Amino acid sequence: MAAGSDSTAPEASEQGRAPVAMEKLVSLCAARGFIFASSEIYGGINGFWDYGPLGVELKNNLKALWWQRMVRERSDVVGVDASIVAHPRTWEASGHVDNFSDPMVDCRICKKRFRADQLDDIGPCSAQKGKAECDFTEPRNFNLMLQTQIGASADASQTAYLRPETCQSLFTDFKRVRESARQKIPFGIAQIGKAFRNEITPRNFTFRSREFEQAEMEFFCHPSEREKWFEYWRAERLQFHLDIGLSPDRIQNRPHDDDELAHYAKAAVDVDFHFPFDWQEIEGVHDRGDWDLSRHTEYSGKDLSITDEQTKEKFTPMVIETSMGVDRTCLALLCDALDEETLEDGESRTVMRFHPRIAPVKVAVLPLSKKIGEAAREIDATLRKHWNVFYDEAGNIGRRYRRQDEIGTPFCVTYDFESEDDKKVTVRERDTMNQDRVPIEGLVDYLRDRLEGDS
Amino acid sequence: MAAGSDSTAPEASEQGRAPVAMEKLVSLCAARGFIFASSEIYGGINGFWDYGPLGVELKNNLKALWWQRMVRERSDVVGVDASIVAHPRTWEASGHVDNFSDPMVDCRICKKRFRADQLDDIGPCSAQKGKAECDFTEPRNFNLMLQTQIGASADASQTAYLRPETCQSLFTDFKRVRESARQKIPFGIAQIGKAFRNEITPRNFTFRSREFEQAEMEFFCHPSEREKWFEYWRAERLQFHLDIGLSPDRIQNRPHDDDELAHYAKAAVDVDFHFPFDWQEIEGVHDRGDWDLSRHTEYSGKDLSITDEQTKEKFTPMVIETSMGVDRTCLALLCDALDEETLEDGESRTVMRFHPRIAPVKVAVLPLSKKIGEAAREIDATLRKHWNVFYDEAGNIGRRYRRQDEIGTPFCVTYDFESEDDKKVTVRERDTMNQDRVPIEGLVDYLRDRLEGDS
Repeated sequence: MAAGSDSTAPEASEQGRAPVAMEKLVSLCAARGFIFASSEIYGGINGFWDYGPLGVELKNNLKALWWQRMVRERSDVVGVDASIVAHPRTWEASGHVDNFSDPMVDCRICKKRFRADQLDDIGPCSAQKGKAECDFTEPRNFNLMLQTQIGASADASQTAYLRPETCQSLFTDFKRVRESARQKIPFGIAQIGKAFRNEITPRNFTFRSREFEQAEMEFFCHPSEREKWFEYWRAERLQFHLDIGLSPDRIQNRPHDDDELAHYAKAAVDVDFHFPFDWQEIEGVHDRGDWDLSRHTEYSGKDLSITDEQTKEKFTPMVIETSMGVDRTCLALLCDALDEETLEDGESRTVMRFHPRIAPVKVAVLPLSKKIGEAAREIDATLRKHWNVFYDEAGNIGRRYRRQDEIGTPFCVTYDFESEDDKKVTVRERDTMNQDRVPIEGLVDYLRDRLEGDS
Repeated sequence: MAAGSDSTAPEASEQGRAPVAMEKLVSLCAARGFIFASSEIYGGINGFWDYGPLGVELKNNLKALWWQRMVRERSDVVGVDASIVAHPRTWEASGHVDNFSDPMVDCRICKKRFRADQLDDIGPCSAQKGKAECDFTEPRNFNLMLQTQIGASADASQTAYLRPETCQSLFTDFKRVRESARQKIPFGIAQIGKAFRNEITPRNFTFRSREFEQAEMEFFCHPSEREKWFEYWRAERLQFHLDIGLSPDRIQNRPHDDDELAHYAKAAVDVDFHFPFDWQEIEGVHDRGDWDLSRHTEYSGKDLSITDEQTKEKFTPMVIETSMGVDRTCLALLCDALDEETLEDGESRTVMRFHPRIAPVKVAVLPLSKKIGEAAREIDATLRKHWNVFYDEAGNIGRRYRRQDEIGTPFCVTYDFESEDDKKVTVRERDTMNQDRVPIEGLVDYLRDRLEGDS
């Protein structure tokens, strides 16, 4: 349960891109409304982020694709949506109450707290105006779960935790879900939802946050099939990240070494993405064995084993977990998409090269002049039945194209003075900047082929 | 901010259905995997619920319809997804730190705590074995926000709150969203997300929970247009609940009396649903005036007013809010759909009469025998590209139809021994129980007409 460790592939520093790219991304994300600090007008709150109009569409697209592929297209996986606050015994059984902690040291002079494994990054002591180093205590464990009190009993209130991972409900709900959904092993339970960790040093934009979203699936199988399913899900999850458009040369599978494995894990492989700051995990596939179901059986007294209908063999299923960081994958999509391009005329443009599946805005509708806005509004309304559309009638058309490039809109539809006569519009593609003249009548089909086609 | 008050329409008791309907619903929801207690194997945790495989699809359908209608189909509303934990000053500005509380009394004998306005419902004191009543203290205010501590400073940690309503981020993000999304008033900001309240007495299944989901929209307009927009959104939101299939005779608009209005509200109207336990609010439409933006201006020192481009007039926009309880609306959908029907042969069946838009499973695929399961699996895989599908090959076909009725599946597709020859399947409709013989080739179109048609 090494919650706070940043895994680093050996070649990280050589391949690392210039840090300026990250600064540019953070600033573009705020200016265009992808992601910005929570409670900005109050100075922000460290480790918490808000997704703006573009960010929420990006994230929703990612979550919808995950749900479609992991749940709706499969007869052997079902979804749930469990509460963020669970019974506190859940976190005793899972080991989080005892073990979910980072070793910390305090400075006796400046009173600040630091992660014991990150002392190399720390400069002079802030209380001594750069003259000397901090004077550290011995490391102590600091639990990363956020606590709260629920209930209103006059003499005692109940300590509860905000879940530090979404997966535990999938184990505690295992029996109920299996029986009510009439599932037999092998089958999986999937969930998307928020989780919280009191990270000591949130950093790298949204990569390490205190509030974050996970998309997790626990696949329950017979002990004899665990290796087969581990390999199946490893390949399947890697493919997913290719299918949402991440560059093949920026993602890789990284198996955990034996000494890196969490105490519950028999095997683990990450999907790492080459962020501007490092190679870092965006998803993990873990063979958790029967650890979780056995622990919850022990702590709840409820039998979570199953009996094979044919052989009458009774056993506790083995679990293969796939765990995607939703915010981390969004950040990978943003980092991967951001591009600066010098055009033939020497000017440069910023382009977000999102795969059309992921692009927050699919189509922009741009009347050449406000005077013909009414007809353009009709096209806008038609397209909105199908996709997320941006309508923009302000500024010259070149500048409006650039604005759409910068947010990654695959197609711009321009309604001009000829459109009224020939009933056609100009469709301009983001990457090639090619322009097609397309009949308004066939516009939805034209765009559907290009936005939802297989390529 | 009368968070805890249950509004009651005058005719509630006469029209109330038998309470047994609620018990049946709760038990069906658990047995079939719609909704059940969080952490069931640990005895549950009061006020927290998990949505199972059917519940999460029902809720996702509702949220997707709301988002489609409130955000994607409109050029004057944009979405966001803000963090659950915001800067604590947010809740000072909003008034929640000072005012979001219920008056409570403690019993000096049994030490239990009760809401001062609900003492009439309380039986004999639990510490005196039914012999006498509780001995209450004077009422004291009890804040309903859940608190936590974030950060890891050695000498001080920071108190933060889990948001008790999702809307405040829409005010604190107003300037950033307006500028980055290039919006001009009138326009709205919408959000779906979790919120938390430490309710003293969670009750009525999911109706009053401690963790719940809201779908809120704040519409910012010129002071001269507030009445027009209030009326527009009142009508629009009532229509939404009709469009998701709630029975017209079980929903009504209920304007708040002047003495019922929250301190920030100039006008308010609820959408009430006739639950088995009472007429209760599932949505509120509120004229919040400029209260929130003015308070956040005052507390943050940031100017949140805007300047009219033509007249150069500077003003703080007025806000019309639409606030839907996602869990409450799900509960209304479940209550409204549940029906017992006596058939011609004297037998009875349980049917969930969900509108196809809302039904968690759209189609069930049922091979008449396991022997022809492979061909049925192919149909299943094809339909899954379009809809959420349930595959069931166990038990006699009549029993399998009944199971689908009970979860509200609009169509069952049966593959039988003739299907191999005539390339047709039997499609059975839930409400009429009529059966059609449909060519497999045209099955997707046949279902699409009926599932996604306008009726």
